[in-house]
Amino acid sequence: MTPGKFITLEGGEGVGKTTNLDFVVRRLRERGLEAVATREPGGTVFGEAVRGIFLHQEEVRPEAELLLLFAARVHHLREVVEPALRRGAWVVCDRFTDASYAYQGAGRGIERSVIDFLRDWIQAGLKPDLTLLLDAPVDTGLKRAHQRSGPDRLEKENMAFFMRVREGYLALAQAEPDRIRVIDAAQPLALVQAAIASQVDWLFSDHV
Amino acid sequence: MTPGKFITLEGGEGVGKTTNLDFVVRRLRERGLEAVATREPGGTVFGEAVRGIFLHQEEVRPEAELLLLFAARVHHLREVVEPALRRGAWVVCDRFTDASYAYQGAGRGIERSVIDFLRDWIQAGLKPDLTLLLDAPVDTGLKRAHQRSGPDRLEKENMAFFMRVREGYLALAQAEPDRIRVIDAAQPLALVQAAIASQVDWLFSDHV
Repeated sequence: MTPGKFITLEGGEGVGKTTNLDFVVRRLRERGLEAVATREPGGTVFGEAVRGIFLHQEEVRPEAELLLLFAARVHHLREVVEPALRRGAWVVCDRFTDASYAYQGAGRGIERSVIDFLRDWIQAGLKPDLTLLLDAPVDTGLKRAHQRSGPDRLEKENMAFFMRVREGYLALAQAEPDRIRVIDAAQPLALVQAAIASQVDWLFSDHV
Repeated sequence: MTPGKFITLEGGEGVGKTTNLDFVVRRLRERGLEAVATREPGGTVFGEAVRGIFLHQEEVRPEAELLLLFAARVHHLREVVEPALRRGAWVVCDRFTDASYAYQGAGRGIERSVIDFLRDWIQAGLKPDLTLLLDAPVDTGLKRAHQRSGPDRLEKENMAFFMRVREGYLALAQAEPDRIRVIDAAQPLALVQAAIASQVDWLFSDHV
């Protein structure tokens, strides 16, 4: 058992992960805890190089996407997450392995057993203590993500993909209700953050 | 069964893979066959990006190395190797999955079962029809690779690594003697190429 806690934020496009990650980090720091904010892929020199491939390559096959994400993940875990947890810090991470199940699994059709295998190999038992799944209808999220009246042609084409991702996330939450807490991200922000606060406080009271 | 044949060249540093790959390709072309020369990682836009990470990153963890190689491999297989084999070409490849077993497995200590899993997932049964393992004592290879009188300090430090790689390759050949033919690469080039020619001609006569 590590002394620190590991919190991840998950969800589709435009559900407010960045805003709410800041909120969680502030809340932890107000309590005098060391909070490390991080994201995947990225957070390490190696991860940023992998992020570069994601941004600049025209085509990345689903299998390659999954493999690159786990390559970045092993650096991120060994260099950022695990050392922070060992020294007692709380780690708050924007997306982690649940995103691989939702995007590469449910979204792109990679079999669950492959992701299970890679997770077990790379994480060796480490998993988040709490995952906040920010859930909103796909069109609400896309509208927010782009600050426009509606999704453009490409986004409409991808609507089916984003709906599979959302369903994938909700199925994960159903399978692990104790770890993954679904937060209704379509509510006004104050209500979203009240819900997040109660989850984080519960984890905190469990900790002290 | 694909109409083309898939030949790979394997071996440590300085065993003459490039020279002998050219030799194999020429020999196939002299017989009127379409021969495609390729290499891993690389051979695709995606693979070259991965090669860039290998060359420019200061540290790549063994697990990440293996994952990147398989990410490049899936692009290389789907975009280069499989289409060529389907149209009846012979593919001659400088290093393939046996190198993952030798370098990342035997050399860096990744468990065989992990490499087996990734191979089965990505290759779905595809394996080389013939693998030419160019084998030479490690110091002979390193001397040739650097055209110098002996290995430098860094190379000596890595000698144990290269010896594990060589042993790893020889163990693969022992387990699959029909597919993997060991060629004594310490012989004069004419003898090396005579040995290679007889293996390739055997595969050719099997084919026609």
